[in-house]
Amino acid sequence: MKKSKPVILVVNDDGITAPGIKVLIEVMKDMGEVVVVAPDSPQSGMGHAITIGKPLRLDKVELYEGVEMYKCSGTPVDCVKLAVNKIFKGKKPDLCVSGINHGLNHSINVIYSGTMSAAVEGAIEKIPSIGFSFDDFTEGADFSRCRPFIKAIAAQVLDHGLAEGTLLNVNFPNVPTIKGIKICRQAQAKWAEEFDERLDPHKRNYYWLTGVFQLNDQGEDTDVWALSNHYASVVPIQFDMTAHHAITTLNTWKFDVQKG
Amino acid sequence: MKKSKPVILVVNDDGITAPGIKVLIEVMKDMGEVVVVAPDSPQSGMGHAITIGKPLRLDKVELYEGVEMYKCSGTPVDCVKLAVNKIFKGKKPDLCVSGINHGLNHSINVIYSGTMSAAVEGAIEKIPSIGFSFDDFTEGADFSRCRPFIKAIAAQVLDHGLAEGTLLNVNFPNVPTIKGIKICRQAQAKWAEEFDERLDPHKRNYYWLTGVFQLNDQGEDTDVWALSNHYASVVPIQFDMTAHHAITTLNTWKFDVQKG
Repeated sequence: MKKSKPVILVVNDDGITAPGIKVLIEVMKDMGEVVVVAPDSPQSGMGHAITIGKPLRLDKVELYEGVEMYKCSGTPVDCVKLAVNKIFKGKKPDLCVSGINHGLNHSINVIYSGTMSAAVEGAIEKIPSIGFSFDDFTEGADFSRCRPFIKAIAAQVLDHGLAEGTLLNVNFPNVPTIKGIKICRQAQAKWAEEFDERLDPHKRNYYWLTGVFQLNDQGEDTDVWALSNHYASVVPIQFDMTAHHAITTLNTWKFDVQKG
Repeated sequence: MKKSKPVILVVNDDGITAPGIKVLIEVMKDMGEVVVVAPDSPQSGMGHAITIGKPLRLDKVELYEGVEMYKCSGTPVDCVKLAVNKIFKGKKPDLCVSGINHGLNHSINVIYSGTMSAAVEGAIEKIPSIGFSFDDFTEGADFSRCRPFIKAIAAQVLDHGLAEGTLLNVNFPNVPTIKGIKICRQAQAKWAEEFDERLDPHKRNYYWLTGVFQLNDQGEDTDVWALSNHYASVVPIQFDMTAHHAITTLNTWKFDVQKG
C-alpha cells in the first residue's frame, strides 16, 4: 500500500517573498503536501528570538498556486510555534525545512541565524528538521544547483528520520558544479566585529555592525573545508547546550559561599 | 605582589534600569572594576539576535556612582559586541557577567534567553562568562539571597578560568534558604505553546504567545532537579552545536542526487 504524501512545513528568515523560499517550496511540492509559514518581513540575524511583549499576526496569503501559505508578523521561531499550535493543531508535520537562506549559515553563524533557529524550533517540537543556506546574499541568487541536493537530503531524512534532539544544517557553495555531499562538524570560527561609526544630522554617533569572519580551524572535517572544496556541507546539530565534558572539572571547585 | 583588580563587563537583557542588574553591579564592584553595557529597553526572549538592518546607538549614562555605564539600543548580543569593539577596543575584560535575569533560564530556556545569549557572546569572544537568573519575574524581586552565591561562583571563575568554548548558566531558586550549589546538566524539556487568540477593534485576529513548561526528564543530575530541591544550579554550556554522535549514522546514508 502506498504511504500517503508527507506533510512538509516550509519556513525561512528572509521573509515570505524571498526567492530562496520559492525554490524550496517548488522542490518540496514534488515530495509532499506543503504548508508555508514565513515572516512578513526579513528577519535575518534574529537567532532564536521569540516575541513576548507584543501580539502576533498570522494571515493566509495566496502567492503560489496550490500551496497553503501564511505570513507571520513575528520571528522565524514564532512562525514554527504558530504553525504547530494554530495550523497543525498538534498533528505534527513529517518534515520541517527552513530556507533557502540567502547567505551561508556555516560554522559559528548557526547561532545568529534565524533560518537555523526556525529549524531548531522544529526539532524541539520533535519534527525532523533541516535548514538550507546558499552562498549568495543577492536577490538574484541562482539556487538551481541546490535543488537536486535538497531533494536527496530531504528524501533521506523522510526515510530514516533523525536522532532525537538533532537536526541538519545544510550549506551550499556558490560554484558551477557542486561535487557532492560531506557530513561535517561545525568549524571553529568567530566574527571580528568592526562597527562603522557615523554622525547623524544632529551630530550624535551611531554604529553599523560589520565584521570579518575569522577561521581558527584547519580541520578537513569541517563545513568550512567542505564548502571551500566545492561540496555541500551537512552538519548534524543539537540544541541541548550542556558541555558535559566540563562537569567533572567544575565538581572539583570549592565554592566559598559567605552568607551574611 | 598584589594582582591589579579584574575588569568585569556587566550586561543583561531586562534593560539597564532593571533591579536585577543593579544587584549584579553591586556584587561585582566588590570584586573588580566594573563596566556596564546594557539595553536601553527590555530585550527578554531575544535569544542570540543581532542588529543588522538598522544602526545602533551607544550612549554613556550615569546611574550608579563610580560605575562606567552605557545604554545600547540593540540586543543583549549587540551590547557585548559593542563593548568589546568600542569600549574595551580589543583589550578584553577578565570576566563577563549577565543578569541577574528576572525569571529562570534553566533547561531549554537557555536557547531563548537574551541573558544567556549575551554570556554566550562573551564566551565566543574568549572572555570567561556567566549568566545569572533568579526565579522571580517581578520588579520587586528580592535578589539578596543570590549575592553570596554570585560572589563565590564569580571568584572561582576568576581563579580557574573556564574551558575554551564553555560558559556557565547559573539559576537561583526563590526559596528562603538556598541549600548550596549543584553542578548539573540541562534538563530535557520544552514549552507546550498555547496562543491566546483575540480580536482587535477592527475584527482582525491576533495572538499572544503563552505556554506551559513540559519537563521530560526525571534525572537527579539536572538543573530542574537542583532548583526544585532548593539548590543553585550551575550548568556548563557550549556554543559549538555539532551533534558529534550523529555523524557516524549520517555517513551511512546514500544520497541519491539526480542532477538535471
